[in-house]
Amino acid sequence: MNFSIIRYILFRVLEFVALFLSLPCLLAVIYHEKAGFAFAAVMAVCIVVAEIGKQFKPKSNVFYAREGFVTVSLTWILLSVVGALPFYISREIPCFVDALYETVSGFTTTGATILSDVEHLSKSVQFWRLFTHWIGGMGMLVFIIAVLPLSGGYNMHLMRAESPGPSVGKLVPRVQATAKILYGIYIGITLLQIILLIAAGMSVYDSVVLSFSTMGTGGFGVLNSSIGSYSIVVQVIFTVFMILGGMNFNVYYLLLVARKPKEALKHEEARTYLMLILISSALIAWNIRGYYPNFALAFKDAAFQVASIGSSTGFSTTNFDLWPSFSKALLIVVMAIGACAGSTGGGFKVSRVMILWQDMKNELLRVVHPQIVKKPHLEGRAVEDETLRSIQSYLMIYLLICVISFLILSVDKYDFTTNLTAVMANINNTGPGLGAVGPVCNYGGYSALSKLVLMFDMITGRLELLPMLILFSPKTWKKF
Amino acid sequence: MNFSIIRYILFRVLEFVALFLSLPCLLAVIYHEKAGFAFAAVMAVCIVVAEIGKQFKPKSNVFYAREGFVTVSLTWILLSVVGALPFYISREIPCFVDALYETVSGFTTTGATILSDVEHLSKSVQFWRLFTHWIGGMGMLVFIIAVLPLSGGYNMHLMRAESPGPSVGKLVPRVQATAKILYGIYIGITLLQIILLIAAGMSVYDSVVLSFSTMGTGGFGVLNSSIGSYSIVVQVIFTVFMILGGMNFNVYYLLLVARKPKEALKHEEARTYLMLILISSALIAWNIRGYYPNFALAFKDAAFQVASIGSSTGFSTTNFDLWPSFSKALLIVVMAIGACAGSTGGGFKVSRVMILWQDMKNELLRVVHPQIVKKPHLEGRAVEDETLRSIQSYLMIYLLICVISFLILSVDKYDFTTNLTAVMANINNTGPGLGAVGPVCNYGGYSALSKLVLMFDMITGRLELLPMLILFSPKTWKKF
Repeated sequence: MNFSIIRYILFRVLEFVALFLSLPCLLAVIYHEKAGFAFAAVMAVCIVVAEIGKQFKPKSNVFYAREGFVTVSLTWILLSVVGALPFYISREIPCFVDALYETVSGFTTTGATILSDVEHLSKSVQFWRLFTHWIGGMGMLVFIIAVLPLSGGYNMHLMRAESPGPSVGKLVPRVQATAKILYGIYIGITLLQIILLIAAGMSVYDSVVLSFSTMGTGGFGVLNSSIGSYSIVVQVIFTVFMILGGMNFNVYYLLLVARKPKEALKHEEARTYLMLILISSALIAWNIRGYYPNFALAFKDAAFQVASIGSSTGFSTTNFDLWPSFSKALLIVVMAIGACAGSTGGGFKVSRVMILWQDMKNELLRVVHPQIVKKPHLEGRAVEDETLRSIQSYLMIYLLICVISFLILSVDKYDFTTNLTAVMANINNTGPGLGAVGPVCNYGGYSALSKLVLMFDMITGRLELLPMLILFSPKTWKKF
Repeated sequence: MNFSIIRYILFRVLEFVALFLSLPCLLAVIYHEKAGFAFAAVMAVCIVVAEIGKQFKPKSNVFYAREGFVTVSLTWILLSVVGALPFYISREIPCFVDALYETVSGFTTTGATILSDVEHLSKSVQFWRLFTHWIGGMGMLVFIIAVLPLSGGYNMHLMRAESPGPSVGKLVPRVQATAKILYGIYIGITLLQIILLIAAGMSVYDSVVLSFSTMGTGGFGVLNSSIGSYSIVVQVIFTVFMILGGMNFNVYYLLLVARKPKEALKHEEARTYLMLILISSALIAWNIRGYYPNFALAFKDAAFQVASIGSSTGFSTTNFDLWPSFSKALLIVVMAIGACAGSTGGGFKVSRVMILWQDMKNELLRVVHPQIVKKPHLEGRAVEDETLRSIQSYLMIYLLICVISFLILSVDKYDFTTNLTAVMANINNTGPGLGAVGPVCNYGGYSALSKLVLMFDMITGRLELLPMLILFSPKTWKKF
């Protein structure tokens, strides 16, 4: 393991944390908020430590997949700890475990909160809270790759470890160019949402921070009622942009950069994702139609909730925990499937489900007609055995982490449904679950141990399992 | 598809159903019960139909895996429908869907009941109800293979399709001899339990039928309180024999027939299974110790419930739905893992979990140290890629069936926990779940649609997924 380069990258990460912290710091100055001191202090420490640390240049440039995984998980742990300090130092979240939970939930774009009242937060702290979603959505390291002239082979390994999806699509041959395009698209869509929200009558501050939260598919809001008290037009804008956030960014690349609209429209994962949201919304709207004066309003709320859960955002316009069992069950299934690969969203990912579904059909066919050999296909290409194998392992690891987390959470005071959906809402980076962690509740009641487990789940889910497991696996540190 | 041989085997199955029905019929005569007419009528029809049907000899002896799967699933559907008739005709279960559910639950050794009062049943009907567990435990077709001089290659395909486990262990080269040994062991252990129960003061009738239920890992009882009102000695006997029922029968073969006690003691799956039960019992006993006057009593109840759920039997001595969340969560995990392969028990099977666990570790190692290639091992042998692949598909199919069943059940009136654990308790052939299907409740409140889904789950779970899916897959019936 090449520790010197990992250490070097972590110091560079600190520099960028300081850069990002300057925004809420500036905001605190504008609004004359005391929290500004907390931001300034953390920034100052970050800069000093980073400048000293950068002096120790890496001894070697050797960088393999394992270095990539370890760097990415350490980066995310560092981000979370440093990102939590302003909440804690400003005393706006006085318990450090809670501040850490909130930050992990922010960076991983989960949106699960421990706060029962989010409206008392100062503007700058609120900004930082929602801005973490935006940073985490596309990824801190992808940002660094985009802006720093890092050479060497490690760009690809870092990008692979931080980006979601069964196979990382390099849009263009150069990794840095890919990262630049991704951030370009990301910034573009965020700006578009900000403009539309302002046009719909929302304040500039709310438009900006809520767009961060939406495009990162995060789910933190500025009001205790989440998105429920905004106008119907605003709710529809959110519905659309949540869906856009969970879309495979390849589609935008094909549409906006490569100018191949036909290929974009044929994108199988995107089509399945949209179809899934449409069908689920229709089924739920039908199931809850009795609660609403007309079907259109039922569909509006159904579509918002499905888009929110399916894209792993986690906003809500209504307390869906009061909906009938079928709607809740379907929402949990939609949560587990999650968003597209190559999006800012979480979950198991639509393309993984598509590949496993095909493999399952092939397996049945093979038993009945052993002479027929078929492979799963995605986007017009056969899925390689290696990829299929890694998806199957992914499923096992995912289930194992869910089961162990569920058992540990069960030691706490909550019931079966609460604990199970809490684990799912955290590992899938969604946010709200059912029962005591439903959309109008929060995670504040869990013990510190449970919160630590859920933080592990959030980071593991965001980084797609391997990086965190490899960091904590004794075999990683053993020489062979 | 060779229909003529499938039809021929089904007619032979009817003969054996008639044979088995003669026992409750005899009992009805002894106890002067009206239900005897129902048994006699069904027996008579079975014999007449079987005798006529047997005249149409199979046109060809071609018999591949697909014929095996289709025959086995049709056999189980036939068994269930015919087996339900005595309940229905005797009016002791007046609704046919309920009678069918009870029979499917019986043959699949699930033990989930729709009856709120099982004590009002006549002796002969009660006998049939619990006897179905014993028939289904080892399997009707395995019985036929053991006693009929069937020649041809189809013994193996039938046995493979009906026996549980990732790979069917032929104990001896000849399939018929294997079937005979299995039934020999099965009858032997059942007799031993009957003798011990009688010695412990239980009535002969109760001892016999409850031993059927235990060794089949079924779970139907003769009292509404299940096993709760018997003495502690009797409860301990049940605990031991439930564990024995869920044990891999290879161990008994090694111990009793092959006389290789050292190999038997080294059996990895059996050791893991026992360790799992021991650790889970200890954890639960610790968790519930406050509910009991002393730790020994808490451990007694914990061990009984863990053995019952882990072996997929489903008896209970206490209402574990009132236990704390951790105990309930652990029971559900133990339920999902289930018993050993090659046992009469259900669930995902301990050996499958062991293989997936090793594969997962290997996968993590492979990412970090690509030069190391490792394969999962079980019982001292490397697991073949083909077996590993089929276990991974098994996991996917299992999850898919669970999710779809859960969604359909959610249309019904029950809550999240009830629906989820109902599906798990049925597909794993365990019986009781949590909430409205907890150990002191029953499945009578579900709609006919939900009951049909659960019946499908029970048979699919008992036959280890493939046979039922292949029966209902359109591709099976398509020519290539």
